[in-house]
Amino acid sequence: MGAAKTAISPTRAENYPEWYQQVIKGADLAENSDVRGCMVIKPWGYAIWENMQRVLDQMFKDTGHQNAYFPLFIPMSFLEKEAQHVEGFAKECAVVTHHRLEPDGKGGLRPAGPLEEPLIVRPTSETIIGATYARWVQSYRDLPILINQWANVVRWEMRTRLFLRTAEFLWQEGHTVHATAEEAMEETRKMLHVYADFVENYMAVPVIKGEKTAGERFPGADMTLSIEAMMQDRKALQAGTSHFLGQNFSKAQEIKFQDKDGEVRYAWTTSWGVSTRLVGALIMTHSDDDGLVLPPRLAPAQVVIIPIYRDDAQRAEVLEYCKTLKQELGSQIYSDQKVRVEIDDRDMRGGDKKWYHVKRGVPVRIDIGPKDIAAGGAFVGRRDTNQSQSMQRSDLVGGITGILKEIQDNLFQRALAMQKANTVELQNEAEFRSFFQPDDEQGRSSGGGFAKCWFASESEVQPLLDELKVTIRCIPLESDSGDASSGEGTCFLTGKPTKTRAIFAKSY
Amino acid sequence: MGAAKTAISPTRAENYPEWYQQVIKGADLAENSDVRGCMVIKPWGYAIWENMQRVLDQMFKDTGHQNAYFPLFIPMSFLEKEAQHVEGFAKECAVVTHHRLEPDGKGGLRPAGPLEEPLIVRPTSETIIGATYARWVQSYRDLPILINQWANVVRWEMRTRLFLRTAEFLWQEGHTVHATAEEAMEETRKMLHVYADFVENYMAVPVIKGEKTAGERFPGADMTLSIEAMMQDRKALQAGTSHFLGQNFSKAQEIKFQDKDGEVRYAWTTSWGVSTRLVGALIMTHSDDDGLVLPPRLAPAQVVIIPIYRDDAQRAEVLEYCKTLKQELGSQIYSDQKVRVEIDDRDMRGGDKKWYHVKRGVPVRIDIGPKDIAAGGAFVGRRDTNQSQSMQRSDLVGGITGILKEIQDNLFQRALAMQKANTVELQNEAEFRSFFQPDDEQGRSSGGGFAKCWFASESEVQPLLDELKVTIRCIPLESDSGDASSGEGTCFLTGKPTKTRAIFAKSY
Repeated sequence: MGAAKTAISPTRAENYPEWYQQVIKGADLAENSDVRGCMVIKPWGYAIWENMQRVLDQMFKDTGHQNAYFPLFIPMSFLEKEAQHVEGFAKECAVVTHHRLEPDGKGGLRPAGPLEEPLIVRPTSETIIGATYARWVQSYRDLPILINQWANVVRWEMRTRLFLRTAEFLWQEGHTVHATAEEAMEETRKMLHVYADFVENYMAVPVIKGEKTAGERFPGADMTLSIEAMMQDRKALQAGTSHFLGQNFSKAQEIKFQDKDGEVRYAWTTSWGVSTRLVGALIMTHSDDDGLVLPPRLAPAQVVIIPIYRDDAQRAEVLEYCKTLKQELGSQIYSDQKVRVEIDDRDMRGGDKKWYHVKRGVPVRIDIGPKDIAAGGAFVGRRDTNQSQSMQRSDLVGGITGILKEIQDNLFQRALAMQKANTVELQNEAEFRSFFQPDDEQGRSSGGGFAKCWFASESEVQPLLDELKVTIRCIPLESDSGDASSGEGTCFLTGKPTKTRAIFAKSY
Repeated sequence: MGAAKTAISPTRAENYPEWYQQVIKGADLAENSDVRGCMVIKPWGYAIWENMQRVLDQMFKDTGHQNAYFPLFIPMSFLEKEAQHVEGFAKECAVVTHHRLEPDGKGGLRPAGPLEEPLIVRPTSETIIGATYARWVQSYRDLPILINQWANVVRWEMRTRLFLRTAEFLWQEGHTVHATAEEAMEETRKMLHVYADFVENYMAVPVIKGEKTAGERFPGADMTLSIEAMMQDRKALQAGTSHFLGQNFSKAQEIKFQDKDGEVRYAWTTSWGVSTRLVGALIMTHSDDDGLVLPPRLAPAQVVIIPIYRDDAQRAEVLEYCKTLKQELGSQIYSDQKVRVEIDDRDMRGGDKKWYHVKRGVPVRIDIGPKDIAAGGAFVGRRDTNQSQSMQRSDLVGGITGILKEIQDNLFQRALAMQKANTVELQNEAEFRSFFQPDDEQGRSSGGGFAKCWFASESEVQPLLDELKVTIRCIPLESDSGDASSGEGTCFLTGKPTKTRAIFAKSY
């Protein structure tokens, strides 16, 4: 494959949305299933998700949370209890109406055994978990409740895209109950920071932490915090959300407790979640025109060793060298775990094998042939830079942790530079319109990025946003204490004075 | 609490089914939810399941399997393709017929947006996974496919019981594809042995490995292997199954491949699974009239340290001692992991705290008070024997791994002795009827257990089995090679000569 040709076609510049699909196909991450909008997550894609789960799960446990599991189904009447919540989810939910099948008399089957009350396949679990918490919480001594659930959820999206938007997806949803608003708010912020920590330090994806405007909040929340990442087409992707639910759900579900002073009070709740969407964010942030690029900390294989030989005699020698090298590399510790090394000894042309691993994003490729062995070395390729070099074996073994760290850091810095280069401050409508030109037919943005703009009123700017297909991503947090952006300016659209500045962007 | 009184009421002898519910309640493992037949798995119960998952997942990976994820929904037409399969599952499945809700004009909601084809919430995934495999498999080079999925499934059971039989449950389902019948059969056997290894060596539950009779097979399987465990009421519980599916699903789903000789052949498939039912088996095998008893290898906390003090001065000293003890115990390695130690410093009466941990089944309790500190020791209680003794601190730290191992072994040996003591060989109908008397009103068996009987024909014995509510559990494997039981005898019912001997039992 020549220098001019890329492993993935089309390239990012040619057709970004189609490039994304082809990266997924080339890396064998997932595919569309026979069920509308539902995906099959293939082993390589699922292994990435498993690594994400492992790290996040430990972060949740380190912050005092326990896992539990709640029902897949939600009685329809539960959804009805919180008005905004049902408004947000009623239009896109899978409804179970029957509990068996019977012969239809024409050789096929039909639903039978109608349920007294339809059940909704959970699109999120505030209502069913809230009803459970109402039974668990009697006294202030029962608080806080700090629980997380790993689960599948279903939202009947009309237009789906692998990982980014699917009818069924995998996620975790934290649901907590607190005695005071302050505690619940602290939890909401704490989990946003956990997400930001994970996404930046493990996924190597820089994010903006911020608060959603009223129009973009989670249905039923008093406040929604989110982390927003910039993809390579300069669109925003919401990578995680943490909701302060106030007393909305505790009132809808009757989560009450007797406080220290003997008074019965409604509790304060939060919820927070990230999903398999993160895999989409990972793909779109780092991958290039040769396919997937994985940050080492989440790569299912961090190093692949490819033995190269011409005959059986060479094979034995080369494989032996590879095995001991694998053992030495695999006993090094990177990111608190043994380095994950694989030998690929499949019967396959060398070039095909190389591109196989390039497309799958393995951070480090090591070719070992008789010449490398003679020289006591190895030929080492980095996926992030696509540069290769010969190294002495001892340098490689002693340096592998450093190489992985360098790749991890490089990916983050590269993505951060991209984000910074495409974040601007806009003062007026003309600048705004010029920045957010419509995508062309191939889905390419001719511009765009993150625009920081002062604005006075969400409803006043909404028509323009709808026209340009732009959304308010968030009001960035000024500091980790969670204060919204401070200062003062004039609305980019109306010129009115305002204290609110937000990130505007096209988004996934 | 005196010697005569038990922490769980009723006792096993008084009312076994109710005792089971109370053990679950006392240990805070799970509860019924607001959705018919679906359970809420609470943190302590879920942590046991997580430990099971961790061990099993590594066993699957060590035997060459990868994880993946397939859709929750199965188009109705997919189920119809395999006649026995649909027969087995059509009567108990959740059917999704609509994809949104709309106002019903009376202030409530009703299902809207009817689907063109109803979707079944997976009761098991042979059909949807098979359809996917049909796309993946083209050539013998694509085989074998060795994939496992961790997922939730739904079977609309009419009578449910926490963990043992719930409408929704969590499980893993392995689905593999092979080029030959021999390979598929070998996989089927291998995974049964993996299950037996796990259940015996981690859950400390002895099992009988065997083959199901035709009438008890998985719907669509050519052969079903299972492991059967005896609960303390002498009933059998099927703890895991591994199915040789022959070419039934590959023909229904068109899983074909071009073989080395150029011929296009149907592939051979297997599937195998264990579920949250295992938690039920664990509870019913080891627990006593004081509550849950956990085998150390799966206990979320293996050791709990309870500080005992009267005032703040004592508190500081005692807690300091507890913390360093925790650190020392927690750096010991048991079963390839650091010993899991917790300090329970909640503000609670000492007796309540003790019984809290007894009921939750924590294998080792350590009381630490000023006198223990003065003596350089600790007061150590074992949950399996309910015996306590003073130990020197150094003996405890150096010996904790041995204590945990002893508890693990003791639980297994105790269960094995129970199983052996209640396994008999029966020669004729009179003996059979006498052995399997009906349960009384409290669900107590006045006898029963595992009966090894020769029998000539499944259909001939079925009426008697139905009358006595007894089932054929399995035809035990004589050896690990997977041969069915050999030898010859006469049918206990008809006196006909036969080569088949099976385990008969009442069952869950």
